[in-house]
Amino acid sequence: MAAITWASLHLKTPTPSLHFPNLPKPRPILARPGPRGRVRASLIEPDGGRLVELMVKESEKAWKVKAAEQLPKIRLSAVDLQWVHVLSEGWASPLRGFMRESEFLQTLHFSSLRLRDGSRVNMSVPIVLALDDLQKSRVGSSTAVALVDDGGDLVAILSDIEIYKHNKEERIARTWGTTAGGIPYAEKAISGAGNWLIGGDLEVVKPIKYNDGLDRFRLSPAQLRLEFERRDADAVFAFQLRNPVHNGHALLMTDTRRRLLDMGYKNPVLLLHPLGGYTKEDDVPLTWRMKQHEKVLEDGVLDPETTVVSIFPSPMHYAGPTEVQWHAKARINAGANFYIVGRDPAGMAHPIEKRDLYDADHGKKVVSMAPGLERLNILPFKVAAYDKTQSKMAFFDPSRAQDFVFISGTKMRSLAKNRESPPEGFMCPGGWKVLVEYYESLAPASNGRVPQPLAA
Amino acid sequence: MAAITWASLHLKTPTPSLHFPNLPKPRPILARPGPRGRVRASLIEPDGGRLVELMVKESEKAWKVKAAEQLPKIRLSAVDLQWVHVLSEGWASPLRGFMRESEFLQTLHFSSLRLRDGSRVNMSVPIVLALDDLQKSRVGSSTAVALVDDGGDLVAILSDIEIYKHNKEERIARTWGTTAGGIPYAEKAISGAGNWLIGGDLEVVKPIKYNDGLDRFRLSPAQLRLEFERRDADAVFAFQLRNPVHNGHALLMTDTRRRLLDMGYKNPVLLLHPLGGYTKEDDVPLTWRMKQHEKVLEDGVLDPETTVVSIFPSPMHYAGPTEVQWHAKARINAGANFYIVGRDPAGMAHPIEKRDLYDADHGKKVVSMAPGLERLNILPFKVAAYDKTQSKMAFFDPSRAQDFVFISGTKMRSLAKNRESPPEGFMCPGGWKVLVEYYESLAPASNGRVPQPLAA
Repeated sequence: MAAITWASLHLKTPTPSLHFPNLPKPRPILARPGPRGRVRASLIEPDGGRLVELMVKESEKAWKVKAAEQLPKIRLSAVDLQWVHVLSEGWASPLRGFMRESEFLQTLHFSSLRLRDGSRVNMSVPIVLALDDLQKSRVGSSTAVALVDDGGDLVAILSDIEIYKHNKEERIARTWGTTAGGIPYAEKAISGAGNWLIGGDLEVVKPIKYNDGLDRFRLSPAQLRLEFERRDADAVFAFQLRNPVHNGHALLMTDTRRRLLDMGYKNPVLLLHPLGGYTKEDDVPLTWRMKQHEKVLEDGVLDPETTVVSIFPSPMHYAGPTEVQWHAKARINAGANFYIVGRDPAGMAHPIEKRDLYDADHGKKVVSMAPGLERLNILPFKVAAYDKTQSKMAFFDPSRAQDFVFISGTKMRSLAKNRESPPEGFMCPGGWKVLVEYYESLAPASNGRVPQPLAA
Repeated sequence: MAAITWASLHLKTPTPSLHFPNLPKPRPILARPGPRGRVRASLIEPDGGRLVELMVKESEKAWKVKAAEQLPKIRLSAVDLQWVHVLSEGWASPLRGFMRESEFLQTLHFSSLRLRDGSRVNMSVPIVLALDDLQKSRVGSSTAVALVDDGGDLVAILSDIEIYKHNKEERIARTWGTTAGGIPYAEKAISGAGNWLIGGDLEVVKPIKYNDGLDRFRLSPAQLRLEFERRDADAVFAFQLRNPVHNGHALLMTDTRRRLLDMGYKNPVLLLHPLGGYTKEDDVPLTWRMKQHEKVLEDGVLDPETTVVSIFPSPMHYAGPTEVQWHAKARINAGANFYIVGRDPAGMAHPIEKRDLYDADHGKKVVSMAPGLERLNILPFKVAAYDKTQSKMAFFDPSRAQDFVFISGTKMRSLAKNRESPPEGFMCPGGWKVLVEYYESLAPASNGRVPQPLAA
């Protein structure tokens, strides 16, 4: 894949329509010396006060790797490895490894963890590692285990371990608010997983890489923080996405920046942050999404000077109001103090009923009230739709509803599959072309059951 | 039913075995003038700072009752009425009525509510009122509704109302951690209920009474607080129960008091607090339980000087770790600063699988970590069992497990049903006799499907 190139911003900003409920004035900028001695604006603090990176210390690496040879081994699935990645870089700070039972229970019941000082950080999605009965018996009385990849190579050590029951039904019910069969993440990573969970302190012996041409876009929270400091950002607003960017998204992002400038911020920077971990089968794969984002940026929809594109390594739960908290919390750790939340974030269709699983407004309501997210400014937005009178995406105006067309994800996919064009102004032509190419690439597999994403 | 009489304490306290994790020293007693001008030890503050009682003001009653005649009417079920009772007396303080959507969502996701000052109170069980489509259309654009009892008499007014969707599946999944059919409360009060919930500010026009001979035992939180003050309690420890009291319970309560004295409290008072609202079909009905408690007290198991027996008006969810938080939180509002939590509190068998629904230890773990319960001292206890070597109930000693017999609730019921006697020392003879009588009273109904509790 070619390097992403940046184009300048052409899109006109529309009339203000974002809701900014009870937003604070820009914080007084706390001067502190930056890494190169310059005085910088300070970014929002990571949860728990400091970013917890879980790489093994270089000075201890040799003997620990050696010692790990003697430990019981647990082979990580692809999704497990994504969680190791997430944990190792501190996206889930202050979590120090896969959850022990007290963290698992607090996550399921309170979407948050109580710290020793009595304060509370958000943590809504269980980050756990499952063991089956045989693996549990192999661990025996060992106090540590070696986590290995598909090829048997050591990835990490989990120490001071705790093994506890994996009540899958309860985990699913409390995470998704349903136990209906067919939740993609549950089918992928829970239903067939073992009856035990193992928690402990994680030390990763080598950075997680995917060798898919996209690793250079996988900036860690620490790297993102450095980048925001380098740019002298005084506000960072994060946009989580797992879909192709259309002009409604772009409208929203540029409008947000304009509003932040109106509020007095001098240099708000956008973190455009596509999710890079597990996604369900009918989502557009990461490699194609990155190609599409590249085209959208080349076509001049967002300003490279004020935009950082990076990949968020988490797997996707599609757990709606529960998961949007995780998406927001992880971005605090990456330095974002504003988080854009849309209609039905992390939502999906009900697995067996003909309706959306979540109320479209619950995500923004829940994330706005969530324990541990009080420091984050949540930016809910009105839905954007295609305005026939302007031939472009605009914020929906209910007083002239007849002028608007809603183009759902399903509709968008169906158009691209059939090589039809969406209305002019829905998505930049280069971006649309990538989508069409993606569906063309699937055609040979259309007789088979499972379309496989192709390498870009 | 005869008045409960109090007997003095005979039971010997056993060797110390309660866990008191990180308990504080007795608080310095804050002197403040009591209601009769005496200086008293201060009880724990209600959640939100003051007890919220929701009786209509006497001066406004006449015109509000008159105005209510014009309002749309909603007929309350027996369970709804129990919740009106709970709300009206402030057990759920600072809740001011049936939950609006923001409270409902916070309850489901966080087991707690954020107050305006940023602090958080515990609230784990939804207290909601359901409407069906027809009722919703009858409410129309009215901003208030009249809540009426079975006979059509006005009970309360709900004003500044909000109507929102009742997603039963999500409510059940997040409250119980399962959606398996056959959860007693769900069958009773959710599955057949309407597709909408109505929240608002509640004003009750007359105190809720049941006219079952037990109303005098239904002390409100305010009345309990007065009673504790009258007794100059410097610690109040609450024991929630919905089962007959056996000598294992009694052992626990007397041991707790002894430990509190050891810690330096001068006058710890026990709130023995049987649940009085809806219970499942195979639980012993309230009237029989109160008879049984009476006998247990007559037989001298607990000290009347330091025990207050009262009825907690809440219905029972059997939602284990979720519900035990509600049981604890409501007792803060009644003045208790210590809460005894046992094995598998508020637990039950899985509705369709052959196992307990909850891990027996999760209740005490979850309640110990719950947001909004930090002020409450949670007292987990070791399980009591019948010690064959002493012919009495004692704390289980795993080093001599063979000396102990566990008598489950199922076993106890089965013995009583068959008019068999439990081992001597399991329960006082008078209390056991009541249980046997209860099951005898059911015999005529044993051919029918549903045993009906008889009036005592």
